[in-house]
Amino acid sequence: MKALVVYPPNKGVEVKEIDSIGQSISGEEALIKTIANGICGTDRGIVSGLLKFSRPPEGKNNLVLGHENLGQVIDKGPNVQGLSKGDYVVSIVRRGCGKCSNCLAGRQDFCETGEFVEAGIRGLDGFMREFYIDNASYLVRIPNEIVDIAVLLEPLSNVVKAYNELMLTQKRMIWWCKDGSYDCRNVVVVGSGPIGLLFSLIFSVQGFNTFVLNKRDPFPIESEIIEKINAKFINATKDQLPNVIDMLIDTSGYPPAFIPLMDKLNKNSAVILFGTTGGEKFEVNADLITYLVENNVLLFGSVNASKKDFEEGVNYLTIWKYRYPNVLNKMITRVVKPEEAPEVLYAKPRGEIKTIISWV
Amino acid sequence: MKALVVYPPNKGVEVKEIDSIGQSISGEEALIKTIANGICGTDRGIVSGLLKFSRPPEGKNNLVLGHENLGQVIDKGPNVQGLSKGDYVVSIVRRGCGKCSNCLAGRQDFCETGEFVEAGIRGLDGFMREFYIDNASYLVRIPNEIVDIAVLLEPLSNVVKAYNELMLTQKRMIWWCKDGSYDCRNVVVVGSGPIGLLFSLIFSVQGFNTFVLNKRDPFPIESEIIEKINAKFINATKDQLPNVIDMLIDTSGYPPAFIPLMDKLNKNSAVILFGTTGGEKFEVNADLITYLVENNVLLFGSVNASKKDFEEGVNYLTIWKYRYPNVLNKMITRVVKPEEAPEVLYAKPRGEIKTIISWV
Amino acid sequence: MKALVVYPPNKGVEVKEIDSIGQSISGEEALIKTIANGICGTDRGIVSGLLKFSRPPEGKNNLVLGHENLGQVIDKGPNVQGLSKGDYVVSIVRRGCGKCSNCLAGRQDFCETGEFVEAGIRGLDGFMREFYIDNASYLVRIPNEIVDIAVLLEPLSNVVKAYNELMLTQKRMIWWCKDGSYDCRNVVVVGSGPIGLLFSLIFSVQGFNTFVLNKRDPFPIESEIIEKINAKFINATKDQLPNVIDMLIDTSGYPPAFIPLMDKLNKNSAVILFGTTGGEKFEVNADLITYLVENNVLLFGSVNASKKDFEEGVNYLTIWKYRYPNVLNKMITRVVKPEEAPEVLYAKPRGEIKTIISWV
Amino acid sequence: MKALVVYPPNKGVEVKEIDSIGQSISGEEALIKTIANGICGTDRGIVSGLLKFSRPPEGKNNLVLGHENLGQVIDKGPNVQGLSKGDYVVSIVRRGCGKCSNCLAGRQDFCETGEFVEAGIRGLDGFMREFYIDNASYLVRIPNEIVDIAVLLEPLSNVVKAYNELMLTQKRMIWWCKDGSYDCRNVVVVGSGPIGLLFSLIFSVQGFNTFVLNKRDPFPIESEIIEKINAKFINATKDQLPNVIDMLIDTSGYPPAFIPLMDKLNKNSAVILFGTTGGEKFEVNADLITYLVENNVLLFGSVNASKKDFEEGVNYLTIWKYRYPNVLNKMITRVVKPEEAPEVLYAKPRGEIKTIISWV
Repeated sequence: MKALVVYPPNKGVEVKEIDSIGQSISGEEALIKTIANGICGTDRGIVSGLLKFSRPPEGKNNLVLGHENLGQVIDKGPNVQGLSKGDYVVSIVRRGCGKCSNCLAGRQDFCETGEFVEAGIRGLDGFMREFYIDNASYLVRIPNEIVDIAVLLEPLSNVVKAYNELMLTQKRMIWWCKDGSYDCRNVVVVGSGPIGLLFSLIFSVQGFNTFVLNKRDPFPIESEIIEKINAKFINATKDQLPNVIDMLIDTSGYPPAFIPLMDKLNKNSAVILFGTTGGEKFEVNADLITYLVENNVLLFGSVNASKKDFEEGVNYLTIWKYRYPNVLNKMITRVVKPEEAPEVLYAKPRGEIKTIISWV
Repeated sequence: MKALVVYPPNKGVEVKEIDSIGQSISGEEALIKTIANGICGTDRGIVSGLLKFSRPPEGKNNLVLGHENLGQVIDKGPNVQGLSKGDYVVSIVRRGCGKCSNCLAGRQDFCETGEFVEAGIRGLDGFMREFYIDNASYLVRIPNEIVDIAVLLEPLSNVVKAYNELMLTQKRMIWWCKDGSYDCRNVVVVGSGPIGLLFSLIFSVQGFNTFVLNKRDPFPIESEIIEKINAKFINATKDQLPNVIDMLIDTSGYPPAFIPLMDKLNKNSAVILFGTTGGEKFEVNADLITYLVENNVLLFGSVNASKKDFEEGVNYLTIWKYRYPNVLNKMITRVVKPEEAPEVLYAKPRGEIKTIISWV
Repeated sequence: MKALVVYPPNKGVEVKEIDSIGQSISGEEALIKTIANGICGTDRGIVSGLLKFSRPPEGKNNLVLGHENLGQVIDKGPNVQGLSKGDYVVSIVRRGCGKCSNCLAGRQDFCETGEFVEAGIRGLDGFMREFYIDNASYLVRIPNEIVDIAVLLEPLSNVVKAYNELMLTQKRMIWWCKDGSYDCRNVVVVGSGPIGLLFSLIFSVQGFNTFVLNKRDPFPIESEIIEKINAKFINATKDQLPNVIDMLIDTSGYPPAFIPLMDKLNKNSAVILFGTTGGEKFEVNADLITYLVENNVLLFGSVNASKKDFEEGVNYLTIWKYRYPNVLNKMITRVVKPEEAPEVLYAKPRGEIKTIISWV
Repeated sequence: MKALVVYPPNKGVEVKEIDSIGQSISGEEALIKTIANGICGTDRGIVSGLLKFSRPPEGKNNLVLGHENLGQVIDKGPNVQGLSKGDYVVSIVRRGCGKCSNCLAGRQDFCETGEFVEAGIRGLDGFMREFYIDNASYLVRIPNEIVDIAVLLEPLSNVVKAYNELMLTQKRMIWWCKDGSYDCRNVVVVGSGPIGLLFSLIFSVQGFNTFVLNKRDPFPIESEIIEKINAKFINATKDQLPNVIDMLIDTSGYPPAFIPLMDKLNKNSAVILFGTTGGEKFEVNADLITYLVENNVLLFGSVNASKKDFEEGVNYLTIWKYRYPNVLNKMITRVVKPEEAPEVLYAKPRGEIKTIISWV
C-alpha cells in the first residue's frame, strides 16, 4: 500500500509502496482505513531533518510519517467493544513506556521515563498510509456530526490538556470572577496558527475575553474566523494590548514574542508555554523574576494529551461547529492528495492554517 | 402585566394581572421579555403548599412563581456589557447573601448563611410573568443554536454542578480507566425524569456506561431518548443491573429506591444525592456503613448551581442537540399557555418529561 | 521463634514456636526485630472468628497475627537506601495487587481489584513475632524523638489518610473561615477510643474546635487527654452538642450513634465514616436525604493508608508529643508480654485506650 | 514608647520615641507587647531606600519598621476568643483590600487589587516597637514549646504557602514515587540564607532528597545545620549536582544562579521562584522554552502567606525543633537590642543567618 515515508534523522520524504499489513488482527485490535491526515510543524521538522528526536521504529531504517489522523474501522477483533465497522476514529499518538506510574495509569502524556513512542514521530510508524492496525484502546470514536472536521482532533487534544491543567493549577486561589464566571479574564494567545486558533476557541466558549496576537495584520481568513469566535486580533506592531493579561498562551516558542508581554500579567495570572522553536534568544532580567514572585504568576509548559483529552476534544468540536458555523472547516485551508503531500511537507503554503492529506 | 402568582406557605396559584415593571432600568440592568418557563417538582410543591421553605419577598404576601426560565433582552442599561438587545438569556435563580465567602465569590450555590433568595421560590419574585428586570451579572447569554431548548438550562445547571463536584472529589484517587478514559465506569441513574435524563446525557458524552433505572417499563419517549444517547433503561423490578456500580445518582429522593443498590457499589465509587422527597423511610444497618468504609465510598448531596455551571450547561446543550438529534426537544413533552399553567401546576400530566409555559 | 498465631476463619489465638526466618535477605530487604505491637478491634475480631475476611497466607492454615507494629532494623540487603542498622521502623500493612492503577502507583489503600494482602489480617503473616523480613519500600523510618510512641503510627496513618481526603474533597467550595483559618469550624468525633482520640488530635492541631462524643462520662484518663488537647468531651446522654457541626467523624460504626446527629450538620459540612461494626440498624428517612441534598453535605468512608500517610503521621506524632506532653504515652494504657497477649486479645481490658505487646 | 522608624521612599532608620498607643482597645482587639523581631532583606531594602514600594501609612510621613514578629498578649477586648493574657502570638503581615474575592475570603496573599497594606512595609506601621494593638483575627497563637524560635514563623509562613501551592499544582499528574512517598525526588534549593534553610527543612521532613546550593563553601554553622537536617550542601562552583532535579527552588532572585540549572529539570518537575533582587540579567533561549514544553515543567512565583500557612508553620516549627535539635535556634546567629538595630539594618553582619532584635 501507499505511504509517506521519512528517514530521520536524515531529511526527505517520499510516497512509497510499502508492505500491506497482514490479514490477521488480534482480539483487541481494529483495522483502520485512513481518511485524512493533518500536516503540522512537527511533520515538516522531520522532513527537513531538523527535528532531532525523530527516529524510525527499532530495527527499521525508515518511518511512516503522520500523527494527525482520521480513519474508519474496516474490521475489528472479537474483543473490541464500543466500536463498530464503519465507525470513524482518531488514534492517539503517544504510547506509554509501560513502566512509570503515569503511563501505567493511561497518562502517557506525563511519561517520566521518556521511553514512550509516538506514531509518525519517534519509534512507531505513523498514519500517513492507506491502512493501519491499532489496539482499540488507543482509538477514539468520532460521532457523525463532526467527521468532516475530526482531523483537527489530534492537535486539539493537546490544547485541551493544557486548558485542563490550567484550570487545575489555578485552583491555588479564587481565580474566577465575582459573578462566578470567567467573563472578567483577558486571555492573550500569541500566534494565529491552528494551535493559536484552537486555544482561542477553547477560551472563547468558556467565557474568557480572548485576544489573538501576531506581528502582522491578519489574513482575511484569520480575520473572519477570529471575528466569528468573538475574539480580537491584535497586530503586535501597532495595536493596543488589553491593559492586563490574566492568561498568556505562547504558541510561537519564540521568546521575543511573549516575554516582553509578561509585564502586563495580572496578579495571580498564568502563562502556558506550548510553542517549540529553535535558535531565538531573549534577555531575562531579575526585575521580571521579581515580578513573577510578587504577583504569584504561574507558568507551565505542556505537551501531548491523554485519551480523555481527545474525548473532551470531540465535545469541543461539536460545540464549535454549531456555535461558530464556517470556522472549523475554513481552518482547513488546503486539501492535497498523498502524491502531492511531499510538496507541502517541504514548504508551508502561504496563508496556510491547516493543510490536509485526503486518502479517499 | 400577566403573572403566575402563588401564596406560600398557602396552596394555590392563579394567573393574575400585576403591576407593570417601571420604565427605568439602572446602568447594570436589563429588561427581559419572558419567552418560556419550565415547570418542575419545586413549582408544584409550592403550589400545593407542601414546600415549607417557600416564601414571598419581604413585605409582600404573594410571590411570582417560576425559576426555570428563558427570556429575551428588550432593553439594557448603559453599563451592561456582553449583551445586546435581542439576545436570548437565562437568569440564574439564587442570589447570594452578600456575607459569606462563597456568596462574595459568586458561589452562592454554596451559601453558608442560608440568607440567599431564590427567584420564584423564596424571597424573590420569579420568572413566570411577561417581563422582568434583572442585573446583567445574573444573566447567561444563550447562543442562537440552542434557543429552542435553552429553557432546559436551569435544571441542567444543577446537574453540571453535581458532575463537576464529582470530578473534583474523585481526584482523591486514580479513578479513570487504564486507557485514561472513563469507558470502564458504570453509572446508574435512579429516576428517568428530566433530571435523570440530563444526568444520563452528561455521563454519556463523557464516555461512561450509563444506565437509567426506574421501577416500571419505560414510556415510549423514554425508550427512544435513552437508546439514542447510548444509555440503557433498567426496570428495577425485573431487569438485571450491571455487576458493579461505579457511580450511583439518585434523582428520586426516595431511600428505598437507591439504598438497596448500594451493595453493588464498586471500590472507590461515589453516590450523588440529588432528589428531595418527603416521608419515605428505609432501614440502614451497620453492614452498609462498614461497606462504605471498607470500599472508600464517597457520597454527597448537591443543590443549586453557579453562573459558571450555567455557562457550561450552554455548551452541553449544544453538544447534545447535535450529537443526539431529536432528544432534547422531545424532552419537552408539552407546551401550555400561561392561562393553562395552573392546571399542569396542580397535577403533573401523565407521561410528562418536561412541561413548558410559552409566553410568546 | 515465638509468634502469636491465629486460624481464621476459626477462632482462637496461641503463642507458638514457629520456624525461624531464613538467614538470607535479598538486596532490597531488611531483617526487623519486633519491638512492639498494638492491639485493636480488628485483631480481636480475628481472634474471635467474627471477622470473616481474615485468612491465612495461601497454602498455609494459620496466620501470624498483628498489623500495628514497631521494629528495629537488624540487618539489611545491599540495595537498601535511607535505612541503617539500628533504625526504628514501622511497616505498612497493605501490599498492593500489582494490577490496578492505584496499586501500581503506590496507593494500595485505594486498591480496586481487592486482590491486596494485609499483614496480620488477610493473606500475609503479621508482625506479632520476634523477627520478620520485609522489603524496605514498605518500611517507614521512625525518628528518635518518637520511638516511645511510634507503635501508634499504624492506626494514625489511617486517620491521616481520612483527614487528607477530607481536605481535598472540601475544596469543592470555600470552606475555610473568613480569617483563612479553620478556627470557626466545629468537629464532632463520635467515639473516644484510640481512633477517636487520634482524629481529635489531628483536628485540634489544625485549629478546629473539637468535640469528642461518647454515651457515657469520660474515664479519668480520657478527661485528662481531651482537656490537654483543647478538645471537649460530650456525654451524648446529657451534654449539649455544639449548635452546628461542620465535620462529623464516626469511629463507632454504630448507626444510632451518629445518624441522629446529622440534623445538626452545617451547610457544606462533611462526614467521615471510619468505624466498622456488625449488626446494628437505624431507620433513615427521606427528610435526612433531602437535608443532605439541600445543604451540600459530603460523606465518605475511608480505610487504610498509603506510605505517605505514614510519613505524615510521623510528623504529627512529633508535634503532639511536644505540644501535648503526657498525652500520647498515656494513651498506651497497658503493656503486656507476648505470653500475656492471648488474654487481652480475647477480652478488652476495662478502661483500655491502647494495649501494647512488648517484645523487648 | 520606643520604635524603629523609617522614612520611605527615603533612606534611613532611627530609634525614636513615638506616641504611646491609646489605652482603650476595642472588643476584637488585643494589646501586644513585642518580644522580638527578625530582620530580613526587605527591612534592609526599606532602610537603604531601594525598596520602591515601601510607603508610610496614609497621612503619615514615617513608618514603624518590622514585619517579622513575636509578641505577648498583655490585654484583650471582651470579644477576643481563643487567646488569653500571657499568650505568645505572631501577627500576620498583610491585611487585605476588603474588595477582591481572595481578600474577602481571608486569602490576602492572593490579593488581586494590590490595595492591601503590609505591616512595616507599606501603608501600615510595623512591629519594631514596644507595644502595638491588633485585631485578634490577625494573631496566631504560639504554643509554649516553640516560643524560643517563633520569631522565625513569619518568614516560614511564606515558605509554607509556596510548598502547599506546589503540592496542589503537582496534582496535574502522578508525581509521588512508586512506593507512595517522595523519597525518589531531588530538590535543589538555590541559596542558603534563612529562606533557603526553611525550604530545605520543609522538604526534608516530607521525605525529599534535599540539596542546598550556594556559589561558595558553607559557613561552619551552615554545614552543621544542613548535615543535621539530612540535606547536602553543594558549592555550585565545584560540586556535583544530582543528575536530575525534580524541584528547583530559587531563593536568590538572581537569574544566573538558577536558570543554568534548568536543563537538569526532570520531566514533570517544578520550579518555585521566591527570591527578589534587582539588576541582574540572563539570556534565555528558545531551547530552554522548548525544554519546558517538552517536559511539562511548571514554574511559579510565590509571595506572602495566609493565616492558615502561619498555623501550619507553627506545626513545622515543633517538628523541626525536636527532630533536629540545635538547628532552629542556631539559625538565630545574633541578637541585638533595639538601640543596636540600626547598625545591623544598614549592613548585614558577616555570617548572618538571622539577626533578631530582642525587646525584653
